[in-house]
Amino acid sequence: MSKSQYVAGLRAVEQLLSTGAGGIRQIYAEYQTENPRVQAAIVEARKSGIEIQAANRARLTQISGEARHQGIVAEVRRSTVLDEGALRTLIEKRLQQDDAGRVVLLLLDGIQDPHNLGACLRTADAAGVDAVVVPRHGAAGLGPTVSKVAAGAAEALPFVPVANLGKVVQWLKDYGVRCIGTSDRADVSLFDADLTGSVALIMGREHTGLSRGIASRCDQLVSLPMQGRVSSLNVSVATGICLYEIARQIRQA
Amino acid sequence: MSKSQYVAGLRAVEQLLSTGAGGIRQIYAEYQTENPRVQAAIVEARKSGIEIQAANRARLTQISGEARHQGIVAEVRRSTVLDEGALRTLIEKRLQQDDAGRVVLLLLDGIQDPHNLGACLRTADAAGVDAVVVPRHGAAGLGPTVSKVAAGAAEALPFVPVANLGKVVQWLKDYGVRCIGTSDRADVSLFDADLTGSVALIMGREHTGLSRGIASRCDQLVSLPMQGRVSSLNVSVATGICLYEIARQIRQA
Repeated sequence: MSKSQYVAGLRAVEQLLSTGAGGIRQIYAEYQTENPRVQAAIVEARKSGIEIQAANRARLTQISGEARHQGIVAEVRRSTVLDEGALRTLIEKRLQQDDAGRVVLLLLDGIQDPHNLGACLRTADAAGVDAVVVPRHGAAGLGPTVSKVAAGAAEALPFVPVANLGKVVQWLKDYGVRCIGTSDRADVSLFDADLTGSVALIMGREHTGLSRGIASRCDQLVSLPMQGRVSSLNVSVATGICLYEIARQIRQA
Repeated sequence: MSKSQYVAGLRAVEQLLSTGAGGIRQIYAEYQTENPRVQAAIVEARKSGIEIQAANRARLTQISGEARHQGIVAEVRRSTVLDEGALRTLIEKRLQQDDAGRVVLLLLDGIQDPHNLGACLRTADAAGVDAVVVPRHGAAGLGPTVSKVAAGAAEALPFVPVANLGKVVQWLKDYGVRCIGTSDRADVSLFDADLTGSVALIMGREHTGLSRGIASRCDQLVSLPMQGRVSSLNVSVATGICLYEIARQIRQA
């Protein structure tokens, strides 16, 4: 795919410039800005041969669909969206290429809030996840808010919207990928689960958790120990804890 | 202290009713609501002898300072705010009472965003933290947004605003509390640090991280392994990962 998307905000654009400038088509920025970070980003972009378009704040909001753009918006090639076939190819490559033959996937079973999706992508990228899989319908998709919160990860991490998440869970098992769902009713603690092989971590929707159809297909359900009075964690925080526990176990295996 | 504060939103009020109803002074709710969760919360509150005040949506917004109150606001006694002396007492008690003589504290070095503070409190409560310490000035304090995001934790977890966070780090050491700061420039990984004793985890401000004065006073600086393209994690996600690694190590020690 080579459709464009727009990334707004200083931190997100700076991150793109430092890691993925090749994916930037052009940058829209306030020319008369006195913000030294915007000025520095323009200088940096010019060095990479990126064209700069002058735009006022209202135009930047219109382009990006995001009012808090801080005076800068990047138009990027979206090349990280994969279909189910491409996900299979990615998994097969990873299982062959990697020394340990391991793949780590994050499946989000219907996250609604773009801020949560963006935060999950940011953490998934940092924790070394190979791809993020989401339902194509009834869940948050990529967009300016997600890109901004993801701080560069939405343009870096393979993102796979699928028609039927349950089917994906089913065929992942054929590759030997263990499907680990999270549920606050699970008896097994995250920290007692073996997460050292190929793993798909499956997180449920805000408030309602994993759907029954998905939970029933998981190889194992795990919970996070809750010691206080609150009954659950924010989904992006819980995702971070689980993904870093996977990374820790792989590292120490 | 017995000043009031206001907690808005269904999830937060339901949480209060189920765990800390004794701290609720009264509840303001839309009487003519058709929302069955609001109706159920009113029934629940009445059972606990809590007075219900009818209020329309505009009034609820005015009371709570929060537009997304979902038709219900609780007025609660704020009794979790401690001063530095009370924190010392709490630590001394914990060191004596607990079998392992252990205290776990979270120090936030200038978090600006109330959503981040709320998310940190929610996670801290779940991870078994004994108290959260923040600078009294130049940082987010408690308020309706924090309470809502914290989902009950702001009314449960001891919260200690202090004049000088560096001084607290200094005297914590006298109690044998190891002060662990997080910094993306630290060489030691979180997962290689010994976190099994009494620990104060110190998280830096959004974007700028730990202040130099605090970093220099820490016993150890640790970093989270970053495997992807993004250069940092959201502070509430990073806090969750660190606090659950502490909980994991204590559990497995």
